[in-house]
Amino acid sequence: MAAPQKFLNFIDSNVPKLIDRLAEAVAIPSISGDASRRQDVYKMGSWLEAQLNKFGVKTEAIPLGQEHIEGQVLELPPAIVGRIGEDPKKKTILIYGHFDVQPANVSDGWNTDPFKMHFDKESGRMYGRGTTDDKGPIMGWLNVLEAHHSLGIELPVNMRFCFEGMEESGSEGLDEFIGTEAKKGNDGWFGGVDCVCISDNYWLNDRTPALTYGLRGLTYFNVLVSGPGADLHSGIFGGAVYEPMTALIALMGKLVTQDGQILIPGVYDGIKPAASDELEIYEKLDYSVQDLEASAGGKIAISDDKSTVLMARMRNPSLSLHGIEGAFSGVGAKTVIPATVGGKFSLRLVPPQQPDDIRAKVERYLEAEFAKLNTKCTMKIEYLHGGIPWVADHRHWNYQAAKNATERRTSSGGSIPVTLTFAENLGVNVLLLPMGRGDDGAQ
Amino acid sequence: MAAPQKFLNFIDSNVPKLIDRLAEAVAIPSISGDASRRQDVYKMGSWLEAQLNKFGVKTEAIPLGQEHIEGQVLELPPAIVGRIGEDPKKKTILIYGHFDVQPANVSDGWNTDPFKMHFDKESGRMYGRGTTDDKGPIMGWLNVLEAHHSLGIELPVNMRFCFEGMEESGSEGLDEFIGTEAKKGNDGWFGGVDCVCISDNYWLNDRTPALTYGLRGLTYFNVLVSGPGADLHSGIFGGAVYEPMTALIALMGKLVTQDGQILIPGVYDGIKPAASDELEIYEKLDYSVQDLEASAGGKIAISDDKSTVLMARMRNPSLSLHGIEGAFSGVGAKTVIPATVGGKFSLRLVPPQQPDDIRAKVERYLEAEFAKLNTKCTMKIEYLHGGIPWVADHRHWNYQAAKNATERRTSSGGSIPVTLTFAENLGVNVLLLPMGRGDDGAQ
Repeated sequence: MAAPQKFLNFIDSNVPKLIDRLAEAVAIPSISGDASRRQDVYKMGSWLEAQLNKFGVKTEAIPLGQEHIEGQVLELPPAIVGRIGEDPKKKTILIYGHFDVQPANVSDGWNTDPFKMHFDKESGRMYGRGTTDDKGPIMGWLNVLEAHHSLGIELPVNMRFCFEGMEESGSEGLDEFIGTEAKKGNDGWFGGVDCVCISDNYWLNDRTPALTYGLRGLTYFNVLVSGPGADLHSGIFGGAVYEPMTALIALMGKLVTQDGQILIPGVYDGIKPAASDELEIYEKLDYSVQDLEASAGGKIAISDDKSTVLMARMRNPSLSLHGIEGAFSGVGAKTVIPATVGGKFSLRLVPPQQPDDIRAKVERYLEAEFAKLNTKCTMKIEYLHGGIPWVADHRHWNYQAAKNATERRTSSGGSIPVTLTFAENLGVNVLLLPMGRGDDGAQ
Repeated sequence: MAAPQKFLNFIDSNVPKLIDRLAEAVAIPSISGDASRRQDVYKMGSWLEAQLNKFGVKTEAIPLGQEHIEGQVLELPPAIVGRIGEDPKKKTILIYGHFDVQPANVSDGWNTDPFKMHFDKESGRMYGRGTTDDKGPIMGWLNVLEAHHSLGIELPVNMRFCFEGMEESGSEGLDEFIGTEAKKGNDGWFGGVDCVCISDNYWLNDRTPALTYGLRGLTYFNVLVSGPGADLHSGIFGGAVYEPMTALIALMGKLVTQDGQILIPGVYDGIKPAASDELEIYEKLDYSVQDLEASAGGKIAISDDKSTVLMARMRNPSLSLHGIEGAFSGVGAKTVIPATVGGKFSLRLVPPQQPDDIRAKVERYLEAEFAKLNTKCTMKIEYLHGGIPWVADHRHWNYQAAKNATERRTSSGGSIPVTLTFAENLGVNVLLLPMGRGDDGAQ
């Protein structure tokens, strides 16, 4: 069902105002992983609640408990839930989004201040942290609500909303809330929900809208190597002591090959090779190696073959090295021997891989490799978080409705762990309806 | 010649005041490598000048030009030079020190704020950035000046001072100044200087004062690997692209073994093995493997043999991996594929190694190893700075005078490049007279 013309006209004639609303949201640096920005996450939640209220949505801020971060105990940002429409004859759709963002600094390579949205009129693109992940898609729903509200058009469905402020930091607290409410059945916050729609991922390229019916899982590790009691001067101690960085770099070098093959024994166990009809899907998708390289901003595709690249990002596991905590990471030249260094890496998982099993395999492998190093340093492995991979039924009416409005279906590489929480707890179909393009530069 | 009793009494009776002066200096965060702290480096220079003036030293702030740092053009901190005493019958001693410091954050492992000096009365130890490197030793000279000034004792020598604010950042600008002044002979700032004394290194342990007549050189590198145009989301791109971190970690893993053997071909060329009489010196030094491990704060000595450890820190080259710029270095879990990462490492050099030759060998090796990786990422090697190794004549009267006041002579592992600048430009003996202990935790 196409949108009514007056709805489309409303959107077209309000573009500057709608863009300003996104800029207002981007300007609140709601970084959930940074304790010093926690007030901004609270502020962003309140801002969002006020917006929803304006368009007739009844809201509630749900406390989700506390967390320990950087040596402090902080209140988790409340989930903002809302409802509009109570017609038993209509379908009830639950919308999910998150209003927190990843950290961002100009020194990361931004051309403009990431928290002051820059609208490039020439290309029509908007630059700013959260424009696509995930404030932009939330604004998409606000735009829908505002149009219906202003024009006096009745919403064709009952809508429920669940927006969280901890998605970039493991969705702390949300699973418990969803689980508890789901157990209450029709008396809970999600009572009567017929299906879920999540807009927190991306098209495959920059021209073809896509639907997503699969997500890779995640396991994230921090392997800590320690030696001296404090950072040492390499002029004084260099050569005379075992250095934690030397051991950590050796360990991190044993995880994955340059072309992405994971070296942890047993990690590929049970993953089925693609059948010929699955290969056909990849072959037919509107996508090219050039699309990938354009969105990556560099000629770095793992292969010149389209299907190989698509399978690498969608249906195969991967391992990325993210960085090192505790070593010298500033500009310039510091001649330090760091005392304790933590190597951060994560694996993207696909069925039938399970985080707990992969975790055991990673730990066993790292311990064996560390023993071989024969260093006097010590190692500790921290498991930071995990999420299992997910696949949905793309024949469901929820997907068919979305398909009628868009064009393609895909399986996607990224992890949105809450997808699975909704699917398991509510027992309804979950649709991933990306609003962002493949070259949006989400992290 | 022992110090006069009334001098010693003055020092003893003014301990709290002298410690307060050091605390005042530590409280100025004069970090030369951080553009945002440049004002504090200027401030520290002015503070020092005022102190010298109080005790009768005539000073001048010497402009040293500009530098490009973090995309800005900044004035280099002026060198603070000073003079007191013009008696042609006395020897003229030039004192060098530096009033800038390395960066320091509580998150690096400090128990207290590094820029608020903590005096632990129990142990008599002072904790704070710069207490030993190198504000403490400068205060040592201020204490000498104040005692003579207050008591009306004549200084036994003419003194000249040269204090800089860029030592931790390659001593930018100072070499040119020393070179220019040296060429002016008796009309220059260093005219009439008979010898130099530098207090910017450490005893071997925590009980025996030491003199230093040798210093290892330094070459510092940043090997940059680039791939995508901006940081990528590992959920979307992981597995589908060549990742710069994977290549950089592989390269950094090829530089040095766990037990400190440098893997760069030709790097040991020309280094003579220790002769039996040299081995005897190491055997006789008041030092043990336990001393090393106590000052390192961990049981991480490269060997259980004292001479092996002493040679490792004094007469052999070493290679340390310092960290990675551009990767994720914060706390928590960020699932980023960093776009450009720079691996920082340095080598400590010993005669006859020369920085230019080592640089060529490092670059050739890294290029060959990078080619073997077969990645589509690109590599660039930045040479950050270097200093040649140095050995002084420890039979000179400058050393003999210091020896009469202390006990041991050593060759040391650290680099103080200005040592060589003074030795070469002034053609006089340079004494390294450490005031700090081996467990001071200098970086």
